[in-house]
Order: sequence, then C-alpha cells, then structure tokens
Amino acid sequence: MLLYGYFRSSAAYRVRIALNLKGLAYDNHFIHLQKNDQLSEDYARLNPQKLVPTLVDGDRQMAQSLAIIEYLDETHPNPPLLPKEPAERARVRALALAIACDIHPLNNLRVLRYLVKDMGVSDDKKNQWYRHWVETGLQALEKMLAGSSATGRFCHGDTPTLADICLVPQVANARRFNCDLSACPTVERIDAECNRLDAFIKAAPGKQPDAE
Amino acid sequence: MLLYGYFRSSAAYRVRIALNLKGLAYDNHFIHLQKNDQLSEDYARLNPQKLVPTLVDGDRQMAQSLAIIEYLDETHPNPPLLPKEPAERARVRALALAIACDIHPLNNLRVLRYLVKDMGVSDDKKNQWYRHWVETGLQALEKMLAGSSATGRFCHGDTPTLADICLVPQVANARRFNCDLSACPTVERIDAECNRLDAFIKAAPGKQPDAE
Repeated sequence: MLLYGYFRSSAAYRVRIALNLKGLAYDNHFIHLQKNDQLSEDYARLNPQKLVPTLVDGDRQMAQSLAIIEYLDETHPNPPLLPKEPAERARVRALALAIACDIHPLNNLRVLRYLVKDMGVSDDKKNQWYRHWVETGLQALEKMLAGSSATGRFCHGDTPTLADICLVPQVANARRFNCDLSACPTVERIDAECNRLDAFIKAAPGKQPDAE
Repeated sequence: MLLYGYFRSSAAYRVRIALNLKGLAYDNHFIHLQKNDQLSEDYARLNPQKLVPTLVDGDRQMAQSLAIIEYLDETHPNPPLLPKEPAERARVRALALAIACDIHPLNNLRVLRYLVKDMGVSDDKKNQWYRHWVETGLQALEKMLAGSSATGRFCHGDTPTLADICLVPQVANARRFNCDLSACPTVERIDAECNRLDAFIKAAPGKQPDAE
C-alpha cells in the first residue's frame, strides 16, 4: 500500500495509526502541504479535493481518512477498530465524527490560510479561532466520554478503536496550539493510554521521515 | 424512533432521507436552532455537542448524522445505503465525508455566528466565506463524480446511497445562499434525480412541520 500524506496532517496521522494497529506495511509519498504539493495537477488528479491523505491499495485509490480506515477494517478485520454491535458502532463513529467533522475541518491549513488571506483576520484572532473550536469540541467529547459507562481504558472499552485514532492527533494539535485541556481529564487520560502503544508512537508526526 | 431535529439542519435532513429510504416511521422533537433550544440543559445532556440531530431508538440514543445512518443501514439492511464491496463502500463514504467534513461544518450556524460575533466579520464577508467553501467543495465533488465510471444515475450506481443523502441537503443550502453551481453539472443532475424520489421529497426542509 502507498500512503500520500504529510507528517503534520491529522488526517494522515489517523491513517498511519490504523495501518500500524493492523500491522500493515506501507510506503510513503510525502505531499508537503506548506509548499503546496497538494495543489499540483498530478496530485489533484489522484485527489480532486487536493487534501491528504490518499491511500493506494493495488489498483484502488481512496480519499478521506475515515473512509480509508473503515476500508482497512473491512479488508483486514483483526484487530477490529469498531465494536460488533450496531449501537456501539454508532457510539464509536459518533465520537470519531465529533472530531473529524466538528473540530478538525475548522482548523485545517486551508481554512486558517483563508481566514488570514481572504478574510483579513489577524494572527491573534486566527489563533483564538483555532483554540475556540478545539476547546469547544474537546469539552463536548469529554462529556461524551466521562458520561458513559461504555468508556473504558480507551474511548470505547479496553481496546483502541476509530475514536481513539481520531482523538490522539486532535490532542496533539491542541497541545501544539497551547489549547486549554484542563476541562478534559478523560480525553487526556485516554490520549496518554494510547500513546503507550507502539502503533500510536510510530505514527506520531515527529517520527515521520518528512518531519521538520 | 424519535428524531431530534430542525427543518433547516442539513445533518437532520440527511437522517430524514435515510429513515424515509428505509421506510421507517419516526416521531419528531423539534430543536429550534435559531432560538437556541440546542443549548438547553436538557438537550445538552442528550447531546453534549449541542448539535442536531440525535436519534433515539428504544433505550439507545445516538448523535452524528453519518453514525446514525450507518446504524440504520446495519439494523435495517434493505434497501442498502452502501455497496457491498469494501473499495466501493470507501468511495461512497469518501463522497459523503467530502461534504460532511469538508463543506458543511464550515458553514454551520454556530460557525457563521462565531465569525460575525467573535471575529467581527461583516455580513458580506460571511456570505463570501459561505459561498467559497460550498463552491470549492462541490467543484471537487463534481470532479470525483464526473471522473469516475462508478457514477451512475446516482453518486454510485443506480440506487441512492449515503453519498446522495449528503449531496441533496448540501445542494439545497448552496441554492439558498446563491452559490454558483455552473461548474457542477453532475452534482446538479444527481440532485434532480434524487429529488424525484418520495424519500427525498418528504425529507425536504419546507415539508417539515417546524418549517417557517
């Protein structure tokens, strides 16, 4: 398999964790987002959204981290990244989507660039925006986790799932931007638990060959 | 089943379409987003993100439209809203997520409010922001659809899937905000195709009892 990614992209980070949890080897093709590699004609043909990641598996190519991870889970079922029971699957997916829809896309590089360049927002205001959506989002996630008996060592029970795969990159970003996580003890506890596992450690941005 | 929704919420609109496609009856509990019903303590206990929709099925309650729709598809498999083959499922999910992650959350009511109230952005600039993300997103979707032989009468083949369920509410919003869809003929063709079906027609915002 070939992963088009970037060390700092949270969405690529998610896919790296999933590949590692499944024990799947993969090659990297680095798309330097700051240098706008994603806007090249070649990459846009592969991924018309001009976003990372893209995963190529044989003659199949696919976009969107959550779609890729569900694909990996369907084609390589062990260890499972989702529980078996439909309502439990819905809980894990909802936790993942609360990050992947309602936090991360608001703080994407392209959005931050647009705020500054096209909306004329100052750097200070941009950072306020970033922290607002991370803190609002992670505080809601905290309530979803702390308020449920389904939460265990990880977001759902005692093995990592799609929810943990989304949580860890988001918490890493939150720390990089000095967000206030004091209201999120369960989120921090689960993040620490995940970061004891090799699959998460090896997927971290700083461990990637393209890290700067 | 009981759906907490709002006539104008695209995420609730998606779930209404899915329920209709499955032929499932449901009751409505309306959460008036403009009047901030979603911020009430009672609703926040049910949905800590303070977003709609929430679906209650017996003693199960669940959030996040895509998680809810996957749940409905797993518990009521006919007609299926996803293809059977993993790479095809990944394609449908990627199309859905390209809308649900990369267009819709940027233009949510809470985000538009924050832009104006907390970032001091003018109404004109706010509308420019809205149109920018809809047009950028739908133009990418157009390439994903027009460039693939898997696209049929609908986004994937000749029956409606999760991708169409996301496309139709997003196109409705695009029209409401006068976005330019001239570069998106395939998106418009599929939207028209969907809107011939009762399941889509009955789910439209204007048909809901809470419509204004």
